[in-house]
Parts: sequence; structure tokens; C-alpha cells
Amino acid sequence: VIVVDAQTSSRSYRITVGHGLLTSLDGLWEGVIAPRRVVVCCDATVAALYLDPVRESLAAAGLDVIALVIPPGEGEKSPQRLALIYDRLYDESITRTDAVVSLGGGVVGDLAGYAAATYLRGVRFVQVPTTLLAMVDASVGGKVAVDFRSGKNHIGTFYQPWLVVADLDTLRTLPDAEMRSGGAEVVKYALLGGGALLERVERYAGSGVLPDEEIVATCVREKVTVVARDEREESGARALLNLGHTVGHAIEAATGFEGYSHGQAVGLGLRAMLWLSERCTGLDRAAAARGQRLLTSMGLPERLEDVSTDDVVGLISRDKKAVGGGVKYVLLRELGVPAPRETVAPGLEREVVEWLAHR
Amino acid sequence: VIVVDAQTSSRSYRITVGHGLLTSLDGLWEGVIAPRRVVVCCDATVAALYLDPVRESLAAAGLDVIALVIPPGEGEKSPQRLALIYDRLYDESITRTDAVVSLGGGVVGDLAGYAAATYLRGVRFVQVPTTLLAMVDASVGGKVAVDFRSGKNHIGTFYQPWLVVADLDTLRTLPDAEMRSGGAEVVKYALLGGGALLERVERYAGSGVLPDEEIVATCVREKVTVVARDEREESGARALLNLGHTVGHAIEAATGFEGYSHGQAVGLGLRAMLWLSERCTGLDRAAAARGQRLLTSMGLPERLEDVSTDDVVGLISRDKKAVGGGVKYVLLRELGVPAPRETVAPGLEREVVEWLAHR
Repeated sequence: VIVVDAQTSSRSYRITVGHGLLTSLDGLWEGVIAPRRVVVCCDATVAALYLDPVRESLAAAGLDVIALVIPPGEGEKSPQRLALIYDRLYDESITRTDAVVSLGGGVVGDLAGYAAATYLRGVRFVQVPTTLLAMVDASVGGKVAVDFRSGKNHIGTFYQPWLVVADLDTLRTLPDAEMRSGGAEVVKYALLGGGALLERVERYAGSGVLPDEEIVATCVREKVTVVARDEREESGARALLNLGHTVGHAIEAATGFEGYSHGQAVGLGLRAMLWLSERCTGLDRAAAARGQRLLTSMGLPERLEDVSTDDVVGLISRDKKAVGGGVKYVLLRELGVPAPRETVAPGLEREVVEWLAHR
Repeated sequence: VIVVDAQTSSRSYRITVGHGLLTSLDGLWEGVIAPRRVVVCCDATVAALYLDPVRESLAAAGLDVIALVIPPGEGEKSPQRLALIYDRLYDESITRTDAVVSLGGGVVGDLAGYAAATYLRGVRFVQVPTTLLAMVDASVGGKVAVDFRSGKNHIGTFYQPWLVVADLDTLRTLPDAEMRSGGAEVVKYALLGGGALLERVERYAGSGVLPDEEIVATCVREKVTVVARDEREESGARALLNLGHTVGHAIEAATGFEGYSHGQAVGLGLRAMLWLSERCTGLDRAAAARGQRLLTSMGLPERLEDVSTDDVVGLISRDKKAVGGGVKYVLLRELGVPAPRETVAPGLEREVVEWLAHR
């Protein structure tokens, strides 16, 4: 078991990474929260796999467990589903000192977390990520949200959990595509961190085994360090975590969030970022190639397919307009040395998307 | 002009109290925020009085002003109205660095503030209270919320404004009943603070003139001091501000939020609290009588009328259950010396409500 401490201005909390943790949640939160009632929120897929053991272990500890099972899919991260969750919390007379536990991936974590953040101005909240993506990214750092109209995460807030429990055993049932999706974020941390983390991720990516405690905990540590400097995305430090995401989001949006998973799109975004870094911030060719190889060995897409490059370029420009005329890209000077606020000539934006489609 | 500085863990900001401030908002926020677009949210009553001058002064400063006028009334503090506000912010492509200005009383401040807190995880937010109640209470401290089903403020968060501008000139158009409603909160601060504030409020309450900068700023200072110690209602310090509110809320709820205004109900709650303090925390009889006189000279109700005392007592007990078996009352040992966490025998709760109805 590895424990990572997260410190933010609003709350400090522990992220526990290990095996066999799912049935000892109440032991892990002892001394941190003391709920009488626990609302376990998960989707139907995760419920079939893990709800019973979680429920039984909490019930055995004398807790009153309420299961809140939602259909799977990003579509549930909606104001409509949120209202149904509020209804349930209201009907069950949940109080601030009771707990909402999100058991699952990023969708459930964001949705249940937003409900927990805003019901009664905040009830106790525990993240139990069961996907690699949620373990290394969504469950840590306090971003919670629902989608609104065509805006991803358009209604949200920052609400740190009271604790995060990442049970690596849950990754055994994770579909390969989901594992690769999480792998893209792992590569992101490796490129940002460089050095030993990069080498460790390179060994892992080629191995075909599940990520170990050290890989997950190191990624979490990277994220926690950045979040501690800029909890509410105000100073700009947190923007580092957007490495690969500007182009990635445009690709997701251009395919109506259906052609590529978030992770695949981020993987393509990271490829674009390596290409741009070579041209704009002096990343050397061998380093860029090393990054591209890592993305390939993680099983991420080689190129952009079945998407109009014009649409992608258009969406990048729209994003830029939305933030007042200047998206700054996170690029790399070297592997492990980010350049956080670079502008890129519009011509190059088109060129990199064309390169992605035809490489 | 008096400026009060508020410091909380999430944000520091200035509360400016004075005359003729409504048409110089952009000057007051210079160096603090730099919006390109400003959404001014107010109800139709306030719009008729103050929207034009505010809009014109902002437009003259080159800002793009969007008026968002809602019907008056507590009923608008609803998830439905909130969704319409989100729609408008979305349609207008508002960004995080644009500003939402709430112009009005507590309802608009809570509603617009909650929208500002959660749209894009938080856009710049400015409170411009135009009622005494909002000036001394709702606009300061970051509590924003909407009602949900029968739960007042059941969906909410803590979101500090970037600045607060209290223009005392707006009180000239405030109906007497509203002024008395704010007066109840002013009395609350006077009882909590004692000393010079109490004497100043006593002079004001009898005078028939509008509250001056010093009265308003001193109340704001009291609030800001408490909020700085406990921004998110976690340590219990903030509970001090609930003086008179437990019984007050029960009275409001027992009349379906129609029999008494919030301020009148809080006034009755303060009377109950003085009575209980005499019996439980040794407040001396002369001090309790002095508090009762102040409530009377502020024009607040003498007794509980047209309400079932059983209903009020029942609602107090339900509140207690909701927080896990123990509402603690804020009582007073002396005027200016609160006793923040007192339990009261159930028999006394019934007795004080009966006393309120038959005094």
C-alpha cells in the first residue's frame, strides 16, 4: 500500500493506492469522517462487479448503506441525472456528516462529486476510482461537474474529497480500451515528469501487465503537486495538466465524443504536442520520437482517422476565442521540462492536425 | 465611504459601504477583475429603479452589459430559474473572466451567486446589495444557494464574491417592512457585539432615519470576522451567526414562509433566545429586557401570532434530528458575550414558544 498526501487550501486528504482495499473503506476513513449513512453511487456495470462486497463490508461495520445505481455512460453526467440524485439524497434525509461514495470511473466521480459538493453546501465525499483514468486523474484534485448542453463539465465546482481509495484489484476487470485510455494520462505524467517516472512508464507500457502501486502513486503525486499550487485553476499552474488536452478535446468534440475515447483523443493530442514542441520550444527530435514510441507501446492510436481536419482546426480556434483570444499551449522543452504557456501560429495548428491525419 | 476587508481561505475582497456607488462599479473593481462582458442580474422591481443607471455607467466605460431580469420573490430561488440563468450564460458565451453582478436583495444574490459559482466552475462575481438585509448579511460571507423541494438553500456552495458594493442610497426606496427585516440582523450583530455597536444600534433604532455607513460597516465587520474563522461552516465558529435563527427558521417554516418575513421571524427568534439565555446561561434580567426593547424599537413583532405553537415546536425538533440529534443553540451570557453551543431541555423549547405566543 502506498499513501499519497494531498494538500490544498480547502482540504488535506489521503490517497491510498493498493490491493484489496474495496472492502475496508470504513477502516480507511476512520478518524477522518464518521458517517451514519453512506450513499454508494455507481453505474450498473460497476454495481454488478463491486457493489455487493462494498455494501456488505460497510453494513457489517454497522453503517446504513444506500445504493444509488445509475445507467452507464457519459450521457448520465447531466443536469437531469443530477436532479434525480438530489431527490434521492433529499428522500433519504442525508445530512452533511453522512457520506457519498463514488465507486467507478470519471463519469460517476464527477457526477456524484458535484452532487456531494452542492447538496446542503457539501456532504462528506469519498472517491473510490475503479478505472486507471479515474485513479490517476479524475478522482484527485477536486474537479467535479456535469455537462450542460454541448458544454463538457460546464456546470461544476472544486470540491476536494475527504479521501481517495484506489484499489488496483478493480483494474483486473477493466476492458483493454479503458486501460489504454488511462494509459494516455499516465504517458502525460511521464512526459511532464521525465526521468525515473518516464523510464518506469516505458517499462510498464511494453509489459502487458497491470499497472503497479508505484506507477499509479507516482502519477497521483505529480497531479497532487500541481493541484496544491493552484487548486482553483487561478494562477495558471494547474494548466500544466492540460498537456495534450487542447487538441485532444477538439478531436473528441469533432467526433461528437464518439469516435475516440477521451484517452485516445488525449493520446493524439500528446502526439500533436510533441510535434509542436519540436518546432516551437526546441524539443529535440530523438526525445520527440521517444514520446511517440511510448504512445504507440501504450496502445494509443497512431493517427487521426475518419475525422475532418477542418472541423478539428475550427474547434481549436473556437476554444481559443472562448478564453479571450489566446489559448496557451503546454509544450515541452525537454522530456520532463514543460513550457507552460506557449502560443502557436495558426498555420502550425492546421499543419499539426494535417500531420496527425497523414503521418 | 468605509471599506471593510474580508479575508477567507479562498479569497480576500473588499466591501465598500457608501453613497452614490451604484454608477461607479467599474471604478471600484479596477485592479480586481477585468471583465469584457457583465451580466447584471436583478429582479423586475430593482430593475425599474436601478438597472438603467448601472447599465449606462458600465456601458460608458466600454463594457458589454447583459441584463438578466427575473420576476421578484423567493420562489425564483429555484432549480428551474437556475437552469434558465445557465442557458443565458451559455447563449451569451460568458467566460470565467467575465462578471456576474447581482443587484438586489438576498434572493437575487443567492441565486446569481450560485449560478456564478458553478458555471464553468466559477465566473467573477460581484455583490451589489440593495436591501439592508443583503448589505449586512447575505452579500458577505460567500453563502450562495437555491431552494430544493421544501428545503431552503438545500442546493448551494460557498463562493466568495470578488467585491461587494453597498450603496446606501438604494435604501431610500426600500419598503419599511424590508427595512425592519434587515433591522433584525442588525440587532443580532448588536447583541453579539455588545458595547459601542449595541449603543449605536439603539440610537439608530429609535431615530427613524436610514442606517448610516458606520452602522452597516460595523455589522459587516462583525460578520467578516466570524466568516474568516470558519469559511465553510466546519469548525462551528460560523454558527454564532445563527443567533436567533433556529427558532426563527421554525417560525418561517410553520407559516409556509408567508406569515412572517425572514427578518420578522429572526426578530422573534432573537426574543426567544433572550428568554432562553436568562434561564440557561445566566443573562441578567435587565440585559434581556434591554434586548427585547431594542427589538421593539426596531419595529419587529412583539409576539408570535396566527401560528400553531405545536407546529413550531415540531419543526424545531425536526431540525435537531436533521443534524444528528443535537441542535446547539447560540445563547448569550451577557450582551456581547455569546455562548455558542448550548443545549436546551425539550421542555424549555416548548415553553419559550408558548411564551412567544402569549407574552
